[in-house]
Parts: sequence; C-alpha cells; structure tokens
Amino acid sequence: MFESAELGHQIDRDTYREEEAKLRQALLAAQFELKQRGDFPVIIVLAGMPAAGKGEVANLLLEWLDPRHITTLAFDAPSDEEADRPPFWRFWRALPAKGSLGVLFGAWYADPLWHWDHDSEAAVSRRVERIVRLEKMLTDDGALVLKFWLHLSRDRLKKRLKALQDDALTAWRVSKEDKQFLKDYDAHAAHAETLLTRTSLADSPWRIVEGWDANYRALSVGRQLLDAIEHHLARDSVKQRRVEAGPLLPSVDGVRLLDTLQLDSDLGKVEYRERLERLQGRLNGLTREPGFAKLAVVAVFEGMDAAGKGGAIRRITAALDARRYRVVPIAAPTDEERAQPYLWRFWRHVPRRGHLTVFDRSWYGRVLVERIEGFASQAEWMRAYGEINDFEAQLDDAGVIVVKYWLAISGEEQLTRFQSREATEYKRFKITEEDWRNRDKWDDYVTAASDMVERTSTAMAPWHLIGANNKYHARVRVLEILCDAIETRLKRKEK
Amino acid sequence: MFESAELGHQIDRDTYREEEAKLRQALLAAQFELKQRGDFPVIIVLAGMPAAGKGEVANLLLEWLDPRHITTLAFDAPSDEEADRPPFWRFWRALPAKGSLGVLFGAWYADPLWHWDHDSEAAVSRRVERIVRLEKMLTDDGALVLKFWLHLSRDRLKKRLKALQDDALTAWRVSKEDKQFLKDYDAHAAHAETLLTRTSLADSPWRIVEGWDANYRALSVGRQLLDAIEHHLARDSVKQRRVEAGPLLPSVDGVRLLDTLQLDSDLGKVEYRERLERLQGRLNGLTREPGFAKLAVVAVFEGMDAAGKGGAIRRITAALDARRYRVVPIAAPTDEERAQPYLWRFWRHVPRRGHLTVFDRSWYGRVLVERIEGFASQAEWMRAYGEINDFEAQLDDAGVIVVKYWLAISGEEQLTRFQSREATEYKRFKITEEDWRNRDKWDDYVTAASDMVERTSTAMAPWHLIGANNKYHARVRVLEILCDAIETRLKRKEK
Repeated sequence: MFESAELGHQIDRDTYREEEAKLRQALLAAQFELKQRGDFPVIIVLAGMPAAGKGEVANLLLEWLDPRHITTLAFDAPSDEEADRPPFWRFWRALPAKGSLGVLFGAWYADPLWHWDHDSEAAVSRRVERIVRLEKMLTDDGALVLKFWLHLSRDRLKKRLKALQDDALTAWRVSKEDKQFLKDYDAHAAHAETLLTRTSLADSPWRIVEGWDANYRALSVGRQLLDAIEHHLARDSVKQRRVEAGPLLPSVDGVRLLDTLQLDSDLGKVEYRERLERLQGRLNGLTREPGFAKLAVVAVFEGMDAAGKGGAIRRITAALDARRYRVVPIAAPTDEERAQPYLWRFWRHVPRRGHLTVFDRSWYGRVLVERIEGFASQAEWMRAYGEINDFEAQLDDAGVIVVKYWLAISGEEQLTRFQSREATEYKRFKITEEDWRNRDKWDDYVTAASDMVERTSTAMAPWHLIGANNKYHARVRVLEILCDAIETRLKRKEK
Repeated sequence: MFESAELGHQIDRDTYREEEAKLRQALLAAQFELKQRGDFPVIIVLAGMPAAGKGEVANLLLEWLDPRHITTLAFDAPSDEEADRPPFWRFWRALPAKGSLGVLFGAWYADPLWHWDHDSEAAVSRRVERIVRLEKMLTDDGALVLKFWLHLSRDRLKKRLKALQDDALTAWRVSKEDKQFLKDYDAHAAHAETLLTRTSLADSPWRIVEGWDANYRALSVGRQLLDAIEHHLARDSVKQRRVEAGPLLPSVDGVRLLDTLQLDSDLGKVEYRERLERLQGRLNGLTREPGFAKLAVVAVFEGMDAAGKGGAIRRITAALDARRYRVVPIAAPTDEERAQPYLWRFWRHVPRRGHLTVFDRSWYGRVLVERIEGFASQAEWMRAYGEINDFEAQLDDAGVIVVKYWLAISGEEQLTRFQSREATEYKRFKITEEDWRNRDKWDDYVTAASDMVERTSTAMAPWHLIGANNKYHARVRVLEILCDAIETRLKRKEK
C-alpha cells in the first residue's frame, strides 16, 4: 500500500513555483463556488507518519485558501466535557458547516492508529465499523470527505528526525513518542496499512502521499483537493445523485403493529395518584444512587398529536432535580443546524454523565413527519434507520441509557382531546391548523410508525409502545419503564 | 433588608390550591405569548440561604410551565473548557434565547456570595462592577432579569437542617458545608446583604422571599414572575422603550483622527520580504514559549473595504501552527445568534488558553456599519462602546491579549484596488455591489471610526491605526505590533 510513497518523489523549485501559482488561483475559485453553493462541506482528514508534514500541509492550505471559510482542528486529549460523552461527540461538534472546509488532524483515526496495542480484535472491528458508518453517513449526506495519509519510509523518518534534532531551532519538535515510534516502525506501519485498507471506502478512499519532499507533498495534496472539489461541484446537485431506494414492502395481510395495541385501561385517579407518587420517589432515588453519576439518560417521546407526551414528560421531570435534566423540544431546525448532517442537532444535546435529556419528539421525525411530508427524500429516510441505530448504539456504549416511548391513542380519543383543547382557554395554544392536517394523515403515520418500530427497536434501545387513551395509565407506565431501565443498568454496572 | 423575610409567612393549603390553579393557567398563557413574540428572554436567578427551597422552586416552575421552553442550569466547578476562558464565558453560553425562560442557580452570584472571605475589597468591587455591567447589558437589550433571594433566618435554617437530617430519606441533603454555613451565619448574612444591595439595579432588583413555608414561597415567586412577564409584555415594544441618547458631538474644528494619519510608506519588496520572514519567525517562537500556554490572543481587523485585512491575516496565520488558531469572518448573524444579545456571537469564539483567534471584522461592526446603515438604533450603538470596553477588559483579565488594528487607506487607493480586483479573474469575487455602495459612505465611516477609536482605545486594548496604502508596510507593522504585545505580556507574567 505504501510502496509508491517510498520512492523518493521530488519536485524542483521552479516547477513548484509555476504550478503553485496556478493551483492557488484555481483552489480559490473552487472555494468561492463551494461557499456560494453552500450545499456540502469539505472534510479533510490529515493523518500519517510523525514528521511527515501534516502541520505544514495544513498551514499551506490555510495560506492558499481564504482562511475565513476553512477551519483546522486537532484532537488532543478530550476535554472533560468531551470525556463525559460518547467518543464521537467531539467529532460531531467539529464538523465544518456546508459551504466550508475543515481540516481535521487525525480525526477519528488518531486513536485507533496509534493506540491500538491494547485493543482486542473485536474492539478494533468495532472501531472500524463505527468509522465506516460515520463516513458513509457524511458522504451519503453529500459531504466531500478527503483522507490524506502522509507517508515516510523507515529510513526517511529516521533521517528527518535526526535533521530536526540536530537543528537547535527545531529540536523541540522531536518528542519521546517519535523516537519510540521509530523503534516500533514496522509494527505501526503494518497496523496502519490494515486500518487504512479497512477504512478505504468508495466515497472516502485514503489518498497516500509521500511526505519527504515538501514541494511534492504540497502539490500532491493541493491538486487532489482541487480535483475532488471541482468534481463534486460538477455534479448536478447533491440531492440528485443519491440512489433512490425501493419502497418499504406493504404488509401482506394489512395488519400493522400499531393497529394491534391495547389502547385502553381502567386505571382510576385514586390508584394513579398513589402509584405516581411511589414511582416518582423511586425515580428520584435512582438518580441519586452513586452509580448514576457514571450513567446518563436519553428519553425519547413520540406519538400522535395530543397523545399526552407533554403530560408524561412533566411527571418525569417533577421527580428530578432541576439541575440534572433538560427537556429538548424538537421544532424546525435553526440555520446552523440546517448546515449540518441530520443527526447533528441531536448530538449537540447529548447529556453529560449524571444528567438526563428528554426529547419531546426526536430524530425519529426523519422517518415520520419528514417521510410523510416529503421533507426528506426516500433515500434519506431509508438510510436514517441505520444511522439512528448506530447513533443509539454509540450512546449505549458510552453508558447513556436510551428509553424510547411511543404513546398510542385512538383516532376518537384524539378528536375528543382536540375538541377539549379548543374549548379550554389556556390550552387553546396547544392546537393548530397543522394538528388537524396531520390528523388527516393518520393512516400514513400508523404505517410509518410501524416501520420505524420494526427497524429501530433494538435490544439496547427497544421501543416501548404504550396505550395512552387513559392518561393515568400512560404516565405510570412511562415512569415504570424509565425506573426499570435505570435500575437494570445500575445493577449491570455493579457487577 | 431581610426583616420581612423572617416573619414566618405562611399560606394555608386551601388558599394555596385555589391560587395555584389560577396562577398556573395565567403563567402558561404568559409563557405562550412570550414564545410567540420571541423578542426577549426571561432570566431567572435563584439564590439564597442553603435549604431555603431553591431546587423546589425551580422544579415547581418547570412543572407549571411548558418545560420545552424553559431551561435550568447550575454552575458547579467550571469544566476545563470553561476554566480556560474568562470567568463569565460560562454564563454567556448559558443565556436563554429570546422567547424562552432560563432558571440559573446562583448564576454570577454563586461565587461572590459564598467564596468572598479571601477577596480584597478591590476584588469585591470589581466583581460587583462586572455583574452590574452584565445585567445592565441584558436589561438594556430587552431581557427580563428576575433575581430571587430565598431567605431563612438563622433559627429557621437551624430547624430546617435538623429536620432534614433527622429523616433518613433526606439526611443526604445536608452537607458539611451547610453545617459550617450555619456556624458562620451572621457573617454570611451580612455579606449577602451588602452584595444584594450593591447589585439591586433599577431594571434588575433583588426580590427577597422567605423560604420557610413551601406554599408561601411558591406563590410569592410565581406571582412575581407572572406580574413581571405580563408587565414586560405590555410594553409596546422592546425597541421603543429604550431611552434615545443624544448624538455624538461633531468635532468643532472638523478635524477627525482618521484624517490625520500618514497612509503612505516607501517600504520596498526586498526589505519587506526580509523583515516579514524575521517577524514570522519571531511570532512563531513567541507562541511556542512555555508561558504562552497560559495566555491567548484575540486579534481584531477593521478597516475600509480593500484595506488589506485578508492579506495581513494570512501573513499572521502563515507563521502559526494551524492547530493553534482560528480565523473568524464576521458576516450576517445566524438565527441562533440573533436570538441572543449582540456580543454573544463573539463570546462564543473566545479562544482557549494557548490559542489565537483572528476576527476579520468584529464586534466593532455595531458602531461602524450598523450605526451607519441604521441596523442598530442610536441607543444601541451608543451603549455598545461601554459594553465592548467591558468585554475586552474581561478578556484582558483572563490573560487574553486583545490586539486591534484599523488598516487605513485613502479613497484613491481604494478605487485603484477595486478596479484591479475587477480586472483579475480570481479576485473578482472579492468585489461586490455593496463595496461600491459603502464607498459612497466613506465620510460616514471616517466619522464613525474616529468616534470608535476615541471611545474604545484603552490601555489594555489600544487601537493600532496603520497606514495601509503600502501593503508591505501594513503587514510588517501588523506583525510587529502582535509580536510586541505577546512579548510584553510574556515578560509581565514572568515577574
């Protein structure tokens, strides 16, 4: 894999000067068009051997391009805010917005590249899988992902380190780790080759560049970047190039999961009050267990309009310390959110350890309202199932308990609630024209929700379908399920 | 000050039930209107004696209101991302957006209230001044700031702590600090009284509420909140109620600061190259000094269009490690930024220690383009001078070096540059209709910039006015000034 990058490529100064001038001009023009279009980001991953020129290449790109629309980010030890969340949270917050470029040093490869020696084979596989999924999501979303590997052969690395060390001005750049790396060169190179092979994807292949000669290195990266951007810009439209997936199969017998639920319950007010109080006490106690400080909770509420999501959420939050939780209502995305991949606006609300976030509607909007209203293309919502499962798996891995509720009511019950809302002064704001329009699409929602449950109810984050015609019953069940989920996890941790 | 809050106020259960029902309904309606209007945030500060019911009050508010548009935040020990920035950075990032409510526990008072014993009188004064400025900025900007002090007399605090401790279910709530607090009650109460007096402002007074009886406490806070929101909503418009300030005095002799600058220089290319390289080396070295890890740099570029800001910025960044700096171009605010006070979008880019942020245009837009185009009212841009000085003082206090450049060119030089941009293929995107329109307002810009320099050139963050008809000269001066500023600060630290 690295053979061609050990040949000792070189470019002389005059050629370089001439080529660089043309390249800069073309890159600036391409960057300008990228900014104007604003429909995809360019994500540049810079990885490679020590002292192979990653920093120099980044500096050069920032010199060539308009530095206002390009950001660079290195990933040193995570900050405590980062360490308290799933490992990829820091990458999500570092993604460049559509229309701009981001240079990420090492990015999601830094860790698996150089800190692999304690990893089991299964752990490596999981890391690779996670990376592949992230990049696939990005490129499916239209991002241009360019991954450069700056290479140095063992001999050249040795020479480079020696040269740096011999010069008083540059000796500081050679660290203990670099020297150790040189000793273990062969093992590192073999590991890197494996990792690069496994993460070279059709839409985000690795690009190997020899890092020895500064001119060669600069022109190689620069030209590949230019070609890639121009090529990406030449596509008619990011949307169009997506492969359209086939539709979901209609159920053969016409029976859908959501049609089979028991919606009613005869739980009365007196028993409800008693059970509610007991459950709230239990929930409060659980969040005060010492073990909870290492966990977090994400609770997701979905369901038809007027299914009682707000009321159920208030029964949860009433049991919690206000300093520990946040309720995130999902409405139309802000423009900063629209400039990012779909899941970005949910990633930003992932709670720190010891905290709870309740989503009033959620990322499932992608496969519900966005699917039904056509806000997302079929390809977009079809791939969302997999992206969502991956997102939730990352939360689960990091100790975030994911609890998902579908509150199910009948059409008649909804009608009654709508009418009662319209009749009550201070509830009137809860009912809009849109609610009535959504009601006309009841059947589409049942189909979409059934598909959703089918495809995203996983062992670590199952859907809880709750009959909610009786509000008391729904609220009690919501609390019971949440308590059980936390308790189970606390016990698992203890072992 | 606390006399009335030591009377033992109580409200019986029946009265409470009746009042609560009415209050909730009215609060919900007010919250709904607040959300609809979306032109100001409600910032609720909850402070007070230990065990006086702050958490309970917050929980109640979240139960009464629509929890989707209210957030709560406690300020424990700062995260490392926060500790690396000026102390108020964490409060800026916690501000609720316009149209929503934020409950801040302790907020900017937590620290000065309970950790005051090591502070000198001067330090206390500085803290008070900073708080007063922040709240003034918020209320001037239209925010409704409500500060509640939940009070307990010494005896009642003692009783409450004992009751909590005697119950196995609540004993955990009494900490060692609470017991110590009780011992030092009188000193703490006296200090709190002083602080509350000094920070009770016309637009953000403290509201003292006795914290003994839960019913009394709840209704007191709830009603005051309702009254305040309704009163604030009843104002015709947030904009209108601002006092209009008088205009800046025209200079009597017609001589403006910016008219007096020496714009030209005869620095030639050869000398430029040599000096540039030396300065870039010097800058690079300075940012690698061990002491720099405790500092940060904010560099601000202002000047007429085509004054050479971009070129000067590139000469700085070319000398830096790409991992250390960010260039932030200031264009139209995003909608998340528009929902916050003016300076919020600059606070969010304040660099961590050891990092540099270069602003290509900046917060000074408020007193330049926004003043001239009328995007900000006169009252808004008039108060911006003071707000900006305070912002920069906070940066300076936290070890952030603020370097501000005004690149000055003549009208003829600008014309030449505009024409050359239009003639050069890859520079054509740098010139727009708007640039030509701004050029017609040249004189207004000179006046505004002269006022700006007059009012915001401070000892810790002076303006550097640089004649920039000769680009070489401007770039060299920019680097020299930056190097000098860092060097001076590094030396100061050493002492």
